[in-house]
Amino acid sequence: MDTQNAIAELLSSLGQRVTRSKSDLDLHARSESHFSAAPPDAVVYPETTAEVAQIVATCARHRVPVVGWGTGTSLEGQAQAFQGGIVVDFSRMNRILNVAQQDMTVTLQPGVTREALNDELRATGLFFPVDPGANASIGGMTSTRASGTTAVRYGTMRDNVLALEVVTASGEVIRTGTQARKSSSGYDLTGLFVGAEGTLGLITELTLRLHGQPEAISAAVCAFETVGDAVACVIDTIQCGVPMARIELMDVDSVRAVNAYAGMKLPEKPHLLLEFHGSPAGVTEQAESFGAIAADHAASGFDWATRTEDRTALWTMRHNAYYAILAARPGARAIVTDICVPISRLAQAIEETRTDLAEAGVDGPILGHVGDGNFHAVLLVDDSDPAEIERAKAASDRMVARSLALGGTATGEHGIGVGKLDYMQREHGAGWAVMGAIKQALDPDNIMNPGKLVPPRN
Amino acid sequence: MDTQNAIAELLSSLGQRVTRSKSDLDLHARSESHFSAAPPDAVVYPETTAEVAQIVATCARHRVPVVGWGTGTSLEGQAQAFQGGIVVDFSRMNRILNVAQQDMTVTLQPGVTREALNDELRATGLFFPVDPGANASIGGMTSTRASGTTAVRYGTMRDNVLALEVVTASGEVIRTGTQARKSSSGYDLTGLFVGAEGTLGLITELTLRLHGQPEAISAAVCAFETVGDAVACVIDTIQCGVPMARIELMDVDSVRAVNAYAGMKLPEKPHLLLEFHGSPAGVTEQAESFGAIAADHAASGFDWATRTEDRTALWTMRHNAYYAILAARPGARAIVTDICVPISRLAQAIEETRTDLAEAGVDGPILGHVGDGNFHAVLLVDDSDPAEIERAKAASDRMVARSLALGGTATGEHGIGVGKLDYMQREHGAGWAVMGAIKQALDPDNIMNPGKLVPPRN
Ligand SMILES: Cc1cc2nc3c(=O)[nH]c(=O)nc-3n(C[C@H](O)[C@H](O)[C@H](O)COP(=O)(O)OP(=O)(O)OC[C@H]3O[C@@H](n4cnc5c(N)ncnc54)[C@H](O)[C@@H]3O)c2cc1C
Ligand SMILES: Cc1cc2nc3c(=O)[nH]c(=O)nc-3n(C[C@H](O)[C@H](O)[C@H](O)COP(=O)(O)OP(=O)(O)OC[C@H]3O[C@@H](n4cnc5c(N)ncnc54)[C@H](O)[C@@H]3O)c2cc1C
Repeated sequence: MDTQNAIAELLSSLGQRVTRSKSDLDLHARSESHFSAAPPDAVVYPETTAEVAQIVATCARHRVPVVGWGTGTSLEGQAQAFQGGIVVDFSRMNRILNVAQQDMTVTLQPGVTREALNDELRATGLFFPVDPGANASIGGMTSTRASGTTAVRYGTMRDNVLALEVVTASGEVIRTGTQARKSSSGYDLTGLFVGAEGTLGLITELTLRLHGQPEAISAAVCAFETVGDAVACVIDTIQCGVPMARIELMDVDSVRAVNAYAGMKLPEKPHLLLEFHGSPAGVTEQAESFGAIAADHAASGFDWATRTEDRTALWTMRHNAYYAILAARPGARAIVTDICVPISRLAQAIEETRTDLAEAGVDGPILGHVGDGNFHAVLLVDDSDPAEIERAKAASDRMVARSLALGGTATGEHGIGVGKLDYMQREHGAGWAVMGAIKQALDPDNIMNPGKLVPPRN
Repeated sequence: MDTQNAIAELLSSLGQRVTRSKSDLDLHARSESHFSAAPPDAVVYPETTAEVAQIVATCARHRVPVVGWGTGTSLEGQAQAFQGGIVVDFSRMNRILNVAQQDMTVTLQPGVTREALNDELRATGLFFPVDPGANASIGGMTSTRASGTTAVRYGTMRDNVLALEVVTASGEVIRTGTQARKSSSGYDLTGLFVGAEGTLGLITELTLRLHGQPEAISAAVCAFETVGDAVACVIDTIQCGVPMARIELMDVDSVRAVNAYAGMKLPEKPHLLLEFHGSPAGVTEQAESFGAIAADHAASGFDWATRTEDRTALWTMRHNAYYAILAARPGARAIVTDICVPISRLAQAIEETRTDLAEAGVDGPILGHVGDGNFHAVLLVDDSDPAEIERAKAASDRMVARSLALGGTATGEHGIGVGKLDYMQREHGAGWAVMGAIKQALDPDNIMNPGKLVPPRN
């Protein structure tokens, strides 16, 4: 590894867009999670695919680690350069290249953020639905296979990325997929790079599927006596074919936190937050169907939000719930869990988790994308209390064990990075070695985001 | 390669389920396409995953090719053992293992056929939507990434396979994915095996997503003056968010063929065949929206089929269209094309293809899954006329070139096998070598369905 020579070469071609300033290294040292800071050796801001190819080729020649950086919101340390090397920050590759109105697709650079994309699309009648809450970059969302509140209706990044341009570990530029909506032409390389966390190459361009802005939208909250009732209501709703656009759970602890943080007055019970998309008549029909099912499960306190401002307030509350939970215990940090189970096992998984956390004395309000069977317990820890951190990590481990036993996964949407690496062998068994073989084949010198996702090299 | 010893070993453990009878070899020598027969050295009928693992391990030790076989309906020679070796026929692995009603999933063996699965599901209120027309096996459909008439609404096999059990090239058994609806845990191995045409391993078990049987269904046919009008109507319908369950095109030549074959009396114009799924009110609303849009494009001759028998007759006609086209020219064989383009380019692609075929003197009625931008010209050739075959193949080549120039793919749903191998470099460029590297990593001795999909080994 010859980091200094690699940086010198990059400086000579990219000049000021290679930086080693302390502030820049610090900014790229941390991510929004509990992992300790890890400054890279340099940060580079490419503006074109050719520059990215040149950066990777240089790093390949000198065997220097290359780590992509979108907005740094990933929660498992994915974007941190724990082995040093070059962080490639995509914030200057933020152009929307083409909105294909009839094809309902957009082609763009990876540094475009979710909100910037939807602002740009507003006038077209189209939108990009995947919504991880944070205003993440499309390249980062693709690389973590992100989803969020709308996946129950519109799918995850896996379902919404059609084609990619990728710089591989050798610095070669390839294209995967086409502009057509489907293809049976060979291995699904697009799908392989989605969720690869930058360990197989850097994404320099993407084509995404878009969806029509719904003619009518309505949203609601309602309360249930138990989490079990709320989940049973979700299951029945989905079984009846009501095409929910969003269906989110907050447990009592989360409700208390958002009440305190956002000045809400929700009853202290588990709640569902819902959104319906469709034609005006369709939305009315969906809401009525849902209302009838919810009544069967003793729902109460319905509050409807059909006006845009009220809906925005509702989802802002939901998106800020993470910060509301953090604020519930000043000074605390969060270990965020992310298990996802078959929906038939969801109530059990949540109830067992609540009991376990209570017994272990770990604070962990629960929020969930329950239509997908996915939920987060946000485990609050005092950074200066190693025993508490240990208790929280042990509780997180038990959650994963519970999820795997129920046929689920350690991570529904946040990904592996370093934080969930220890669960890979348990979840995938011999399949993890297959991932390692693919990594070895496509990145033989292990320069692309080393130390993440695949089995460690000897 | 030591085929005789491999067969001897298999005979000693599997007995009569290893066959070398001429009739069995002949049956597995051909597929429903224009490729010449290629009998394997033996056919094996495993009943369990352990047997499949043993078969592959034996073949690996002796470096003998292993080719999976579902029902042999693939159209590009995928299931033919052109290099000899062992065909693994999955027809005895045809058990449905578990229908998870609340999770809306089914776990089954690969030899279950699409129709058998839906027969089994009928009473559950659920169904499996992917419909390639042929009564193919789920393992084969997964391996060709099949789709068909309902993909516009329900997606392709890529979207509907949740988890797999796979025997890899070394004879090891791995599991990919989980029973949860989504996951961000590592590379998407499930997606890698879907569409791999048995070149990376044999699938021995699958979990599929199911969908609720729609409460109401209605279907219709209508005629347009031009293909351009029909396609414009499709684009507008999708843009308006009408959730079409099926939207299929037949050009004039196809309409003539089905009229003759099925005794229909459709006007000799391009037609759309449609199906709407939803609640009774929803279906009515969809049909009205479609009707209004179709009127804008001068549609005529609407014929509605709300009764089950009428709908069945309509889709039987569509599914038999391939045979109707073949029957239009007795003794002819078919070279089936399968391009898929961005839908904004679909009318252009179809019109240019029709003109080209007319000029080249090639018979090629056109059918299409137009909601996806995918269509087939069924090129009729006289097997004893090499010049005609040449003309048809040249026309097929030009279709692919046209598709790629328009941002599309050589194959929307049929796959590569040997028939489309020559287009891989053109479509994928350096990405094809990446596929080759993955193949090399997971099947270093090149025993899994050799000669298909990836670049030839030297
Ligand atoms: C408050 C909060 C709530 C969240 N809620 C959700 C949620 O509901 N659902 C959800 O899915 N996620 C959620 N997340 C996690 C986070 O938003 C996602 O992981 C997001 O996808 C990360 O995007 P990013 O642009 O910040 O990527 P980064 O964090 O910068 O990078 C993520 C990974 O992608 C790689 N990468 C970045 N750009 C590229 C590129 N161009 N090519 C190749 N690799 C690249 C990085 O190396 C890294 O491995 C939440 C995060 C926070 C802080
Ligand atoms: C009249 C007609 C119409 C058609 N229409 C359509 C259509 O509309 N849409 C569409 O998508 N297709 C269509 N097809 C093509 C065909 O139905 C599909 O390719 C189907 O998916 C093949 O399934 P099969 O079980 O016959 O597989 P086979 O032909 O037996 O095998 C296909 C491939 O899968 C491999 N394979 C089989 N089983 C396994 C396993 N268990 N593990 C690993 N590999 C395996 C084989 O080795 C081979 O490479 C049509 C075919 C016909 C004849």
